[in-house]
Amino acid sequence: MKVLAFLLSTSPSLYNFLTKGPHFLAPRISVSANFLGSQFKRPVLKPVELSVFAMATCVHTSRTETPPQTKPNKTQVDDCLFQNFVKYCRPNSADIVSCAPISEKRSNTLHMCAPTGLDDVNINHEEAVDNLWKLMKDEARSDIDEEPILSNYYFSSILLHDSMESALANHLAMKLSNSMLPSGTLYDLFVGLLTENQDIMRGVKDDLRAVKERDPACISYVHCFLNFKGYLACQAHRVAHKLWLRGRKILALLIQNRVSEVFAVDIHPGAKIGRGILLDHATGVVIGETAVIGDNVSILHNVTLGGTGKVSGDRHPKIGDGVLIGAGTCVLGNVRIEDGAKIGAGSVVLKQVPARTTAVGNPAKLIGGKENPTKLDKLPSLTMDHTSHISEWSDWVI
Amino acid sequence: MKVLAFLLSTSPSLYNFLTKGPHFLAPRISVSANFLGSQFKRPVLKPVELSVFAMATCVHTSRTETPPQTKPNKTQVDDCLFQNFVKYCRPNSADIVSCAPISEKRSNTLHMCAPTGLDDVNINHEEAVDNLWKLMKDEARSDIDEEPILSNYYFSSILLHDSMESALANHLAMKLSNSMLPSGTLYDLFVGLLTENQDIMRGVKDDLRAVKERDPACISYVHCFLNFKGYLACQAHRVAHKLWLRGRKILALLIQNRVSEVFAVDIHPGAKIGRGILLDHATGVVIGETAVIGDNVSILHNVTLGGTGKVSGDRHPKIGDGVLIGAGTCVLGNVRIEDGAKIGAGSVVLKQVPARTTAVGNPAKLIGGKENPTKLDKLPSLTMDHTSHISEWSDWVI
Amino acid sequence: MKVLAFLLSTSPSLYNFLTKGPHFLAPRISVSANFLGSQFKRPVLKPVELSVFAMATCVHTSRTETPPQTKPNKTQVDDCLFQNFVKYCRPNSADIVSCAPISEKRSNTLHMCAPTGLDDVNINHEEAVDNLWKLMKDEARSDIDEEPILSNYYFSSILLHDSMESALANHLAMKLSNSMLPSGTLYDLFVGLLTENQDIMRGVKDDLRAVKERDPACISYVHCFLNFKGYLACQAHRVAHKLWLRGRKILALLIQNRVSEVFAVDIHPGAKIGRGILLDHATGVVIGETAVIGDNVSILHNVTLGGTGKVSGDRHPKIGDGVLIGAGTCVLGNVRIEDGAKIGAGSVVLKQVPARTTAVGNPAKLIGGKENPTKLDKLPSLTMDHTSHISEWSDWVI
Repeated sequence: MKVLAFLLSTSPSLYNFLTKGPHFLAPRISVSANFLGSQFKRPVLKPVELSVFAMATCVHTSRTETPPQTKPNKTQVDDCLFQNFVKYCRPNSADIVSCAPISEKRSNTLHMCAPTGLDDVNINHEEAVDNLWKLMKDEARSDIDEEPILSNYYFSSILLHDSMESALANHLAMKLSNSMLPSGTLYDLFVGLLTENQDIMRGVKDDLRAVKERDPACISYVHCFLNFKGYLACQAHRVAHKLWLRGRKILALLIQNRVSEVFAVDIHPGAKIGRGILLDHATGVVIGETAVIGDNVSILHNVTLGGTGKVSGDRHPKIGDGVLIGAGTCVLGNVRIEDGAKIGAGSVVLKQVPARTTAVGNPAKLIGGKENPTKLDKLPSLTMDHTSHISEWSDWVI
Repeated sequence: MKVLAFLLSTSPSLYNFLTKGPHFLAPRISVSANFLGSQFKRPVLKPVELSVFAMATCVHTSRTETPPQTKPNKTQVDDCLFQNFVKYCRPNSADIVSCAPISEKRSNTLHMCAPTGLDDVNINHEEAVDNLWKLMKDEARSDIDEEPILSNYYFSSILLHDSMESALANHLAMKLSNSMLPSGTLYDLFVGLLTENQDIMRGVKDDLRAVKERDPACISYVHCFLNFKGYLACQAHRVAHKLWLRGRKILALLIQNRVSEVFAVDIHPGAKIGRGILLDHATGVVIGETAVIGDNVSILHNVTLGGTGKVSGDRHPKIGDGVLIGAGTCVLGNVRIEDGAKIGAGSVVLKQVPARTTAVGNPAKLIGGKENPTKLDKLPSLTMDHTSHISEWSDWVI
Repeated sequence: MKVLAFLLSTSPSLYNFLTKGPHFLAPRISVSANFLGSQFKRPVLKPVELSVFAMATCVHTSRTETPPQTKPNKTQVDDCLFQNFVKYCRPNSADIVSCAPISEKRSNTLHMCAPTGLDDVNINHEEAVDNLWKLMKDEARSDIDEEPILSNYYFSSILLHDSMESALANHLAMKLSNSMLPSGTLYDLFVGLLTENQDIMRGVKDDLRAVKERDPACISYVHCFLNFKGYLACQAHRVAHKLWLRGRKILALLIQNRVSEVFAVDIHPGAKIGRGILLDHATGVVIGETAVIGDNVSILHNVTLGGTGKVSGDRHPKIGDGVLIGAGTCVLGNVRIEDGAKIGAGSVVLKQVPARTTAVGNPAKLIGGKENPTKLDKLPSLTMDHTSHISEWSDWVI
């Protein structure tokens, strides 16, 4: 309790917050305070160590499984290697509810290239979330040391919560509430759904790792958790999608609207989104009702997965695993973007894009040509390489 | 009063709201409560019945007036049929103030393809708004039945108001207010302007129907009214435009700014916008000062109707009736997009687009070629068909 | 004090604001009130006169230095004239900290085409800011005369502040605060940084003039200051960039996030941005960590200066002086857009663009061709001419 007492003394309004704060936090304060006190007694793995471990694991895997220098044209060999690569990079769980486009069953043994190495075959999902949450609390404490004027902010957002579920519910509720939608109502709704649906929490955790791993501008898990509107919009969508599946459409659509206003990200609650998703920058992203997005997908800002016509029914794109979609791109209609494909920035895509190919332009064309398109040997959503092959595409000077 | 009492008992904070709520709602509560009580005694047409009726009317009309299978090239016959089609689909009023590009006078007898069939030649505009408002209150009650935790929200947003004018003024005021611009001030301003300018209310009503009719993701009028930021931004613009015309530029520009911050839709208050407008998703839409938009236009997100150069004067696009503009498209300069034209997603348009043609690409080209462009036989803004003809455009695989 | 008394009597809540308002404004009220009283006794140059003066100065300069009708192809003569033009249009200060791509040293004698003519060789930077601030207060009083219901808003935003530093700190704090980040904390932070870093204030002032000069929709300095989210986002970035340079990364990133949520403008605090910047409309702008932007640059909405790949290090574009980038354009990777270049709307740029050329399309090509591109004879960021030369580019009808 010493640390808490110290912080209370340095930040006078925290005391008020603890004693007079929003009613919905009151029941958890005593638990959190106790938890906080004991938290400091345990040794916790430092972020740096974990990240080094993660990198090493991943490098080892890719060395073993995927020759880094495989050339295109040896298509058959490549295809086999690539499929292994995709397979080994999948999230580590068999119970994905919201990820239609992938036909193969996940295997519980595939952890060799888990995005950050936090997972281990010997720990289960709940432990992994718990470990990640402890790590994030350490990051929060380190941030407060650097920037004491943010003590209150970090306490109410992170340190007062004894679980990631509670902190995420609180953070989303604070962001999405307004004078007509009180944060308490939203918190109660969110924390209930997150706690009882561990499939959502798997997405929450895998997305956090995806952002940390793929976005060089992300300096810590807690940085992403508090600040990245693409990340928060995606998690709010996971909650809204659950409500949608349960027939609570009014509420799901209200959340969609608030997310669109607050984060400028418009995802219909009917859309099915896999895990390990990075919505980078996120402003202007629009994803339609019958869109389906696989696992480990990276989508930049101003990307539209849109419908065409006012017919109801299945009318939006299907995005495979490991796909990268560049900024400002429109994919329209019920077309399939197959696993590991890359779509360049500013493209307009109206037709299917084969696996591991690169499509660019308006209208989009395949790099290398229709008959023998250049095949990617790495997952573009993980490398985030927007310009390989594309830079050879322009036939003029620039 | 039974329903009100029941809802009060299920939602404790509503009682507080009614007795201690914002002062500007107080005078209306008694009226609304009485109205609410009596409201339940009258039979009201169900939304489903209305919508079936509307569809039937529209199908009948288009069968009679427009051969569904007319081919292009028979241009002269087409042109005549098409002009009839456009004519019959116009809003049902002769007094449109803000719609310059249409030269023909509206006729009061043209209701055959009114967007939702709510209008009837035997009822006038005020009755139509009143009927629509009653329908929306029924939808609100049904939503509360499904989702009781939203009772307060629906009461303060919809059910406490005895007119659509009051509800819209309140909803916009709540969205656009901040700590420096109190919602009471905005409410008083908005409700006055809406009540005394029924030409604005015609737009409010026609846009509501346009969204419900054209957007398959819109489940009810009240869903659009409460949630669609494109809809709300357009109505806020109608108010700002009225202020602009009256010389109250400071206030008009302040509303423009708040709409740009809250909804990410930037419409200069000088822009003239017709009726039956759908701004779908709406994030990133920019419409310049001297732009003019006709009736029954559908515009997707991230569309720019922009100027060029810093000269003052008439420098923005003129959009005809029934035009559809796809996501991410830029139309720049004082160019005319003629009636019934379609512009594909991601296009850049710097020159005039002839009526009923389809322009795509960067720079935009006409589908079918300059000499003999393919002509559309349906209004693209109503079909919302983004890809017909366009999908044949790509000469590569995808 | 008569005016203040009058306004107090017409706006009852102002009295409450003055006596019970946020604590952080309290110490300044007495000073401001006195200042206000005396302010009205002095004659102040009217905005109209100043603007006429500015236009005249600028026209004179460009006539002298740049032949308005120079044709392309006479490249060498052009180059010389153009370099003079760029040189004479630079901001009037030698100590630019955040503007890497310009190699020549600024000279203190170059004021001939200062954006608005407010500067004079005989007054220094502090005086120029002070004069501009007085002018803005006059504009604010004139706005209140036109729109008395905005008295409170203008008083708390403009008239109560005795310096532009205080008003800007307050306005940004009010916009960026939320229930977890109190406006008082942000105000204290911002006002300290602005007051002690006059290099930031030079940018604040030059950007204000750039908007007023280049955007025909901007009716006054105070209109820009209060309303333009591109302007406010840019100034918030200047503060965040200063924090970033001092190693206060947590706080800098938090400001980046709030700006992205509130203004939909995502500028990494590491980005280096020069002076005289116009971010027009601004929704969806994304600028990466290692991007560098020169002076007198105009960037439209939805422009991305993005990285590629997840490698750290220098990975974002470098934008020279006087560049104009049209709406929806993506510039990706560490490529250089040289001085005075223009990039058309909706372009995708992956390679260097030479000085004074025009690049358009997806992928971007040079107007006039690779070998002998058409050269611009005016700074495109100042003319804001988006379509000269570009309109000849389309080879189809539209």
